[in-house]
Amino acid sequence: MSDFNRRPLTLAIDAMGGDHGPPVSVAGAEIALGRLGNGKVRFQLHGDQTAIEAELVKHPKLRPVATVHHTDKVIGAEEKGSHAMRRGKGSSLWNAVEAIRSGGADAAISAGNTGALMAISKLILRMTGGLDRPAIVSSWPTRRGITAMLDVGANISSDAAQLVEFAIMGEAFYCAVHARPGERVKVGLMNVGSEEQKGHDEVREANTILKDGGIELDYHGFVEGDDIAKGTVEVIVTDGFTGNVALKTGEGLARFFVTELREAMTSGPLALAGAFLAQGALKRMAARLEPPGGGPLLGLNGVVIKAHGGGTATSFADALKIAADLAASDYAAKAAANMERLARALDAPPPAAETMS
Amino acid sequence: MSDFNRRPLTLAIDAMGGDHGPPVSVAGAEIALGRLGNGKVRFQLHGDQTAIEAELVKHPKLRPVATVHHTDKVIGAEEKGSHAMRRGKGSSLWNAVEAIRSGGADAAISAGNTGALMAISKLILRMTGGLDRPAIVSSWPTRRGITAMLDVGANISSDAAQLVEFAIMGEAFYCAVHARPGERVKVGLMNVGSEEQKGHDEVREANTILKDGGIELDYHGFVEGDDIAKGTVEVIVTDGFTGNVALKTGEGLARFFVTELREAMTSGPLALAGAFLAQGALKRMAARLEPPGGGPLLGLNGVVIKAHGGGTATSFADALKIAADLAASDYAAKAAANMERLARALDAPPPAAETMS
Repeated sequence: MSDFNRRPLTLAIDAMGGDHGPPVSVAGAEIALGRLGNGKVRFQLHGDQTAIEAELVKHPKLRPVATVHHTDKVIGAEEKGSHAMRRGKGSSLWNAVEAIRSGGADAAISAGNTGALMAISKLILRMTGGLDRPAIVSSWPTRRGITAMLDVGANISSDAAQLVEFAIMGEAFYCAVHARPGERVKVGLMNVGSEEQKGHDEVREANTILKDGGIELDYHGFVEGDDIAKGTVEVIVTDGFTGNVALKTGEGLARFFVTELREAMTSGPLALAGAFLAQGALKRMAARLEPPGGGPLLGLNGVVIKAHGGGTATSFADALKIAADLAASDYAAKAAANMERLARALDAPPPAAETMS
Repeated sequence: MSDFNRRPLTLAIDAMGGDHGPPVSVAGAEIALGRLGNGKVRFQLHGDQTAIEAELVKHPKLRPVATVHHTDKVIGAEEKGSHAMRRGKGSSLWNAVEAIRSGGADAAISAGNTGALMAISKLILRMTGGLDRPAIVSSWPTRRGITAMLDVGANISSDAAQLVEFAIMGEAFYCAVHARPGERVKVGLMNVGSEEQKGHDEVREANTILKDGGIELDYHGFVEGDDIAKGTVEVIVTDGFTGNVALKTGEGLARFFVTELREAMTSGPLALAGAFLAQGALKRMAARLEPPGGGPLLGLNGVVIKAHGGGTATSFADALKIAADLAASDYAAKAAANMERLARALDAPPPAAETMS
């Protein structure tokens, strides 16, 4: 879906974000450069000049396509979003997002504070559509590839129209970033059963709009929690409360499983010998289960990617690749066209959405 | 907590429920008899006499403490709860629950249709407290033992008072069934962050009642999805929609991990040799990760346990053990006392719950 046959994309990086700062973000940029190709991408590195230059020295290939944009100011990992919004002006995170609006950047990437990234992005870029806050997408490895779920934390309660907006944005994102050529991108709506009468008003109403509202996407119907790992659909839509709980439940279980497996495989000499023999296969499995290195904040006038705070240079490079794919795609136009269809569907007689309120 | 120093408990079993019917339920009863001890328990086996007798022949120890209660009628796995409630009278499931009301049974256990079990139990036994439907408890193995979560599917939207009822019932259940002597049973409320201002109205209001409402339980505060596997608290309270999605997300991921691990360990001769050497450790890990074989439907005037539909005789025996522990405990009295405190807290000035509505 991506079209890199044009001027190089410019990615604005909050180089100070995340647990590791410049050593990971600068190394990640060089890996991404290798993947995206010379001449296709440029990087703005926002943050402490000395710290960034010290890393650039180790990455000579990156140097010619990178510019350093100095600031002393850094937003702390624990700072509240509202506080960061008021006090974060001039920070590396702020400047990376601001670069989309006025600095020629096509996308911003930060491994920093999620709440701050959300609040500052919303303030600087403003929202499209009818959402109050950006929707966060989480992508999960599954038996069949990748399943993207949104929202996973920004919008605590979501009415039917917002759930449909998530569907539209999530589908356009998946097509732009994850879809293989010719892959059907099916959208499912999270519920507690697959029958039409299940669930609360919001999901049943969203189901009606997605089925009958003239929105051009491949709507599968209701899905349940176990459909995430099955990969039943490519995009799962849910409210930010349920999505956040499901995401963190899954993250917690994944860590639990890995810890239990490590303990089992080191529990005695036979198990240790077994682990030694199977180490290649276990490493390949671990790599397969690794989720993508970042997720977008959707619904903004601009591409903003949250990279994993504790990620490696490789996972930061994944986040940069997602940013580049999304920025180079027709995501925005496609989402906008479907948002217009949604607006017409909500206005049209018989007014499917209004009968509920 | 259990007190078996009295007349034998009588457990009414829907012998036809679940994927396997009498072969599993009858074998499970014999295992439970071994665990609970002779003279402590009796079994009513509800269902097809011929099929049940054919299994009893294989389990001679069970024979003296079991009675067979014949019925031809069985509720199908796919039957809707409302349909089963209207048409299920005289079925093995119905008769097992009815035995609590009029047949001298202390608890009913079924591996059958959850919706039917819920609807029929509610009809026959009636609810205590202010809940519309029984709350289903799911118990998860964690790093520290077992965490029980409720509701996982019955009550789609839950107001603050209902969430507090879940807390009261869940804590009393955990003390009766899972708690080790002297173990602190902490209760957490599922949210998307640990700060007081997070989440929607219902969870913030329930938080206030649990902190200040004079209810006698060890309240931890908010927890998040990853606290399930961490075992941060013993009981997690959430609405039935979120709980159901989290449960199924977890179940799906667990199956995904197991499948991936099996594929990895059979992916080549080295991995196979490793799996052979480590098989003892891997089996112990699998056993540790196995969830308990059943969960109660709480909020009814009587003990009803849903056993896993696809479970083994051992997991059915687990469900019978849970039923016996709960029936022999002071669960009902403890929950009732706290429900009264809740009612007073909701009525008391300043009316913490009413300021929100």
